[in-house]
Amino acid sequence: MEFNKRLKNICAKKNSLVCVGLDVDLNKIPEFILQKNEPHVYFSQAIIDATIEYAAAYKINTAFFEACGTAGWDAMTKIVNYLPDSVIKIADAKRGDIGNSSRMYAKAFFEKLNFDAITVNPYPGFDGVAPFIEKEEKGVFVLCHTSNKGAEDFQKFSDGKNKLFEIVAERVKQWNSLNNCGLVVGATFPDEMKHVRNLTPELPFLVPGLGAQGGDFQLAVKYASTGSGAIFNFSRSIIYASIENDFAEAAGKKTKQMRDEINQYCTI
Amino acid sequence: MEFNKRLKNICAKKNSLVCVGLDVDLNKIPEFILQKNEPHVYFSQAIIDATIEYAAAYKINTAFFEACGTAGWDAMTKIVNYLPDSVIKIADAKRGDIGNSSRMYAKAFFEKLNFDAITVNPYPGFDGVAPFIEKEEKGVFVLCHTSNKGAEDFQKFSDGKNKLFEIVAERVKQWNSLNNCGLVVGATFPDEMKHVRNLTPELPFLVPGLGAQGGDFQLAVKYASTGSGAIFNFSRSIIYASIENDFAEAAGKKTKQMRDEINQYCTI
Repeated sequence: MEFNKRLKNICAKKNSLVCVGLDVDLNKIPEFILQKNEPHVYFSQAIIDATIEYAAAYKINTAFFEACGTAGWDAMTKIVNYLPDSVIKIADAKRGDIGNSSRMYAKAFFEKLNFDAITVNPYPGFDGVAPFIEKEEKGVFVLCHTSNKGAEDFQKFSDGKNKLFEIVAERVKQWNSLNNCGLVVGATFPDEMKHVRNLTPELPFLVPGLGAQGGDFQLAVKYASTGSGAIFNFSRSIIYASIENDFAEAAGKKTKQMRDEINQYCTI
Repeated sequence: MEFNKRLKNICAKKNSLVCVGLDVDLNKIPEFILQKNEPHVYFSQAIIDATIEYAAAYKINTAFFEACGTAGWDAMTKIVNYLPDSVIKIADAKRGDIGNSSRMYAKAFFEKLNFDAITVNPYPGFDGVAPFIEKEEKGVFVLCHTSNKGAEDFQKFSDGKNKLFEIVAERVKQWNSLNNCGLVVGATFPDEMKHVRNLTPELPFLVPGLGAQGGDFQLAVKYASTGSGAIFNFSRSIIYASIENDFAEAAGKKTKQMRDEINQYCTI
């Protein structure tokens, strides 16, 4: 099934547009977990168990696992294998290279690891994205307008008519012939989000920036969830909702709360 | 010592501007190596031993190791540990994310793994690069103009006066206060390379595209090696110079040949 269609189906079935971001930082998780054999895995499995009722997708941020070396990569493998097929599994890897190398990244995340989608950086151009979108069931979310301050540095570079992030959005629309492309559009820039939504109603958005980064909830949901819809990522605000023994329960509550808050402002 | 200064010193001491790219693809290495315990490691160590006399730097392309999962990451760790401090060790990882995540990538490649430098994608902007350039001895090569066809897609987007890759070059110049920033500029676009060199004489270049990708040797060396100089990467053309039992010897010969050819056209 086409990735974008499956994403839509899962969101509808779970009545949720929430993506839980597993940015697992060993300095932030409850101390008792550090005594466990595989703390990343223990923590993530507990978070997944507590949140899965309310989440449509999980996003694994590769940076946090690579920071722990081989053990981190091994943990990431176990965590993605633990996720059931009833949710979308996104590698938040921000990869992108020349075709020859991107093909290897596609192999890493879609064959060796069983992710459904990956975040990709558009800077190297089409041949850097192509290996990720050859199979309709595997998807990409291409960085369009990120949620950070640095988004102003290059993404808003303009030819007087269009800005770079708009050019990227337009191009990704052309790459979407298998209905498996989406965009990363940060919630912290609602005007830009509104604009990208108007340009590309057919592309789903992966929206970071609503939790710890403080993006405007109502506006982001209003703009992003029209057209092909969106999933809204929460990392720190969910997984560190409590750093005590009740961390999993607190994460579950927070996920439910985010789901309900989003659903107030849109129809899935 | 500042990264760019150390890079210059090593190139001078070794009288070489050659970077050997370890894009280790198990489908391309001699068949008998697949029987070894750790084929990536065995192959890379043999290549390193045979080429180290003629190379100033080694570049490990993370894509090729990630494609083999946890075992690949483990192999990469062993290979970077095997490289001596007499050469520059570059993680060709094309990373780049919001600050919070880039900090984790910096930890992965500069602390957990002992790389000297990393290739970084500029799209997320300054806060995505900042964590990589906080220590003067660790460097970045920011993607400026890549060597692939897709380089035309976004990197040449223009405001009528400047193109995106020129804007990136100018900004990286500003980020270079610790003398640890450089640029990735592909040999397959000599005019653009000449232009970037004129804009940023103080930044070293990492130049891909001269080997299997077919960039113009004489022009690339002429343009890139002025100013703060450059290192020229060869991956496939060196490591697969032979795919028979003499692969290491052939790689050594090819590295010497590339070094001598480059040195004909420039003074280190």
